[in-house]
Amino acid sequence: MKPDETRTAWAGKHLEVSIERWGERDVEIVEHPGSVAIVAVDEADRVVLVRQPREPARKRLIELPAGTLEEGEAPEATARRELEEETGLSGGRWRSLGRFWTSPGFLREDMHLFLAEELDQGEPDTEEDEEIELVRWSRAEVEQRLSEIEDAKTLAGLLLYLRVSDSSEPD
Amino acid sequence: MKPDETRTAWAGKHLEVSIERWGERDVEIVEHPGSVAIVAVDEADRVVLVRQPREPARKRLIELPAGTLEEGEAPEATARRELEEETGLSGGRWRSLGRFWTSPGFLREDMHLFLAEELDQGEPDTEEDEEIELVRWSRAEVEQRLSEIEDAKTLAGLLLYLRVSDSSEPD
Repeated sequence: MKPDETRTAWAGKHLEVSIERWGERDVEIVEHPGSVAIVAVDEADRVVLVRQPREPARKRLIELPAGTLEEGEAPEATARRELEEETGLSGGRWRSLGRFWTSPGFLREDMHLFLAEELDQGEPDTEEDEEIELVRWSRAEVEQRLSEIEDAKTLAGLLLYLRVSDSSEPD
Repeated sequence: MKPDETRTAWAGKHLEVSIERWGERDVEIVEHPGSVAIVAVDEADRVVLVRQPREPARKRLIELPAGTLEEGEAPEATARRELEEETGLSGGRWRSLGRFWTSPGFLREDMHLFLAEELDQGEPDTEEDEEIELVRWSRAEVEQRLSEIEDAKTLAGLLLYLRVSDSSEPD
C-alpha cells in the first residue's frame, strides 16, 4: 500500500499533519516517529507505573513508562533511556511483548511494548518532570486495580503481563 | 485541570489541532469527538473482527469493529450502529468493558469499549466500505492468534474478553 501523493498540511512544534492522496480520497494523517512503552517490574516483583497530568484528558492518568522514538535510535535503547529518566530503573532482563498501532485510522504511531524484569532501582531524573509520581503495584494489585487504568497501552501491557506471568509461574 | 487558553491551530476535513496554553507551556493536541469499539460475539461464540486497509500503517490490520462518536449520540447507540453497518450484527446482550484514552499525550480520543454477545447475523451495509473483510475467531483461536493483532484497542479488548469469558464460564 502506497499513497499517490503526500503533502504536509500543518507542522507545529511537536505534531505534523499530512494529507495523503489514495485514488479518489484524501486521507488526513497525524505523523509520528513511533513510540515505546515498558511493563517495568522491580526486584520486589512490583510493576512500576507513572501517574502524570495529561492535558488532552484534563486529568492525571496512571500509565506504563513510555516515550517517543528518536531518529536512528533502536526501540529498546529508547525504552531503556526513557525508563531510567522517568523511574530511575535500569538493568534487568528485557524482552519484547509486541508492537501495535495506537489509533491506526488516522495516527501513524506505532508502539513497541517491552517487558523488563528484575530492574535495579536508582534515582529518577525528575528535573523536567516534577509532576511524575511513581506508583508500584504487586501482581495481585494489578489484577485488582485494572479498572483504574484509563489508557489503552497500559491496559494492553498489564493484561499481557498478567498472562505471561501467569503461564510462567504457578500462583 | 484546565488550560489558560485554547486556539485552533489547524482544521482539516476530519482532523483538527488545538494549541492549549498551560502556564509556561504550549501543548499541541489533536482534537477528537471520542470513539467506540466492540468485542462482538456471534451466536456460534465466535468473535467477529474486521480486516481493513489502514493508510497510516500502510497495510491491512485486523481490528475490533469501531467508530467515531457523533455529536449528541450515546456511545452504545454509536456502537450498535457502527457494528451493524460494518458486520451486519445486531441485537444481543451488551455491557461496558471500560473506557480508555488511545494516546493521551497529545490525542483527545477517549474510547468506549463494549462486549456484545449472542448477536444476530444480518447483512452488512458494505456500500461504502467494500474493503472491509470479516474475520471470525473462536475463543481458542483468539488465544492462539493474539500475536497477529497489531492494534492497541483490539489487543486490550480481546485480552479483556479472554479474562471475562474465562472467569464466567468453566473451560
